[in-house]
Amino acid sequence: MKIIRIIFLVFLSILFINISYAASIDPLPSWNAGPNKTAIMQFIQDTTNKSNSNYIPPEERIAAFDQDGTLWVEQPIYTEVVYSLDQIKQLAPKHPEWKNQEPYRTILSGNKKAILQLKPNILMQALFATHAGMTVDQFSQSVKQWLSQARDVRWHRHYTELVYQPMLELLNYFRANGYKTYIVTGGGQDFVRAYAQQVYGVPPEQVIGSATQTHFQFHTGQSDLIKTTKLLFNNVFAGKPQDIYLFAGRRPFASFGNSTGDQQMLEYTMRNHHSSLMLLVHHDDGVREYDYGANSKVGTFSNALMNVAIKNKWLVVSMKKDWKKIFSFNQ
Amino acid sequence: MKIIRIIFLVFLSILFINISYAASIDPLPSWNAGPNKTAIMQFIQDTTNKSNSNYIPPEERIAAFDQDGTLWVEQPIYTEVVYSLDQIKQLAPKHPEWKNQEPYRTILSGNKKAILQLKPNILMQALFATHAGMTVDQFSQSVKQWLSQARDVRWHRHYTELVYQPMLELLNYFRANGYKTYIVTGGGQDFVRAYAQQVYGVPPEQVIGSATQTHFQFHTGQSDLIKTTKLLFNNVFAGKPQDIYLFAGRRPFASFGNSTGDQQMLEYTMRNHHSSLMLLVHHDDGVREYDYGANSKVGTFSNALMNVAIKNKWLVVSMKKDWKKIFSFNQ
Repeated sequence: MKIIRIIFLVFLSILFINISYAASIDPLPSWNAGPNKTAIMQFIQDTTNKSNSNYIPPEERIAAFDQDGTLWVEQPIYTEVVYSLDQIKQLAPKHPEWKNQEPYRTILSGNKKAILQLKPNILMQALFATHAGMTVDQFSQSVKQWLSQARDVRWHRHYTELVYQPMLELLNYFRANGYKTYIVTGGGQDFVRAYAQQVYGVPPEQVIGSATQTHFQFHTGQSDLIKTTKLLFNNVFAGKPQDIYLFAGRRPFASFGNSTGDQQMLEYTMRNHHSSLMLLVHHDDGVREYDYGANSKVGTFSNALMNVAIKNKWLVVSMKKDWKKIFSFNQ
Repeated sequence: MKIIRIIFLVFLSILFINISYAASIDPLPSWNAGPNKTAIMQFIQDTTNKSNSNYIPPEERIAAFDQDGTLWVEQPIYTEVVYSLDQIKQLAPKHPEWKNQEPYRTILSGNKKAILQLKPNILMQALFATHAGMTVDQFSQSVKQWLSQARDVRWHRHYTELVYQPMLELLNYFRANGYKTYIVTGGGQDFVRAYAQQVYGVPPEQVIGSATQTHFQFHTGQSDLIKTTKLLFNNVFAGKPQDIYLFAGRRPFASFGNSTGDQQMLEYTMRNHHSSLMLLVHHDDGVREYDYGANSKVGTFSNALMNVAIKNKWLVVSMKKDWKKIFSFNQ
């Protein structure tokens, strides 16, 4: 029976090596040690430990992540807007009337300052118009195609490289601990779904975003959904908790944002019994990324929001102090 | 090294026993043998076998099930309508004006024929009004409370017992083969989510239904979503494929319905390469359940729908011939 004893010892050793190895690996290597990192890891330990009073059953482990400014760069202009402006430029030869028609005239002028001063509703309708009439599959292909080629002006990188490495680690860390990770974005649901699996490991059914109505059609055995310009949801402010409930039917236990548009989502996540995690990313690193200040139009982190965060004991993450690196391509 | 040979032989035997056991168990014991059962099992075998040309990767395995008339009894009147009418009766003492106000006067008269002749929009608004102002949690509690007590008039059973045993077997069979099962119902999303996990094994995020707008509010650290009467989606006909895409972001490979309201969902499921399963439950068993005929107002299965099914080679399941038993409580 010597062989059984040997097998048993080998088994024990493997078990021991695995346990020590797991304890020694830092799940958040791009995060500096400090109260924020400690609080995040404490939350995960507490909510996954059956004997802890804050334990959360696996099926209720929902974590919600804003995208623009929380998972990837949103300055100086949202990536999706850049995509749509490029689409308008591409479509312009077929629409000679646009030269004398607003907002297309301003958009085609290339004057970024003037473009950003267009009324949001008018700009949005012009952007929607670029995909109206496409099938949802054509739109998804168009986004993928554009992302594979377009590069941002500051880092000359593909936009999908401009995701925050510390946040990718958080997504993985939460998933490794049984959390279902949702993206809850003010951006277009169809736009984000085109790359969310590949870039964030988030499947389409876990992307909740602003959405326009589709129109179903069926001809000779072939069905399609056609995009229209009719807005269904504007997934910002109170829209975020409303749409999380509509889609997921559950209240998240953790949520992550960076601007006033995320405040209600974090309020919705708060529990009386403190078993929830609310976190805001603060853009205060003008060297490695952007220092927004309190008056930025894109991704507003006002003094009022800071006061709400302090009052409610939300974690405020300083990109400058809490993050060792911003992007995976940083040294 | 004798011991290793013994371990190997024991291992092989266990493997063999498991394989034979799996092959001998019928996953659909309440289904009679026949072309429909064969086609369902063939679909599962083909789409889960990597070497088959109709193989579907696990993340794309989506199956959509209508509820009323497909998973549970919908005659003579939808369960959710019975619930709402009961709510109106319960609220009536607080609303003396209802005695002289339509549609409440008709509803409170208890005259079922007259109630069913109310205009659908007017009836729907009255039903919505019963839950407007409640928090979503209060509504869910109210539904659970009602379901734990109310019984139907024909079988004197709880409504949640009136689910079709063969369809529960299908749900389990699909899930056991890696399919994510969605309920796609014309009924209220919040209503069905209150019991879908317990009754069908379907979590809230996989229930897509008709929905009304909620209103987010936050006071002193406490947030709530309040139900309103504003309709967001009417999840029938073309609404079904549109909402499946909106929620799941994927086209199902299998879908199950029983009426004209499901036609577009089945059309959306159809593929050119035949690797999809479309099935309609036909209510032709007046003895064990109901024989609708072609002119039923609830769950219409018109001759036109039958022609569409035949033309597109959808499976039409006869409750009379294909199902050994209807309910789990049948002998």
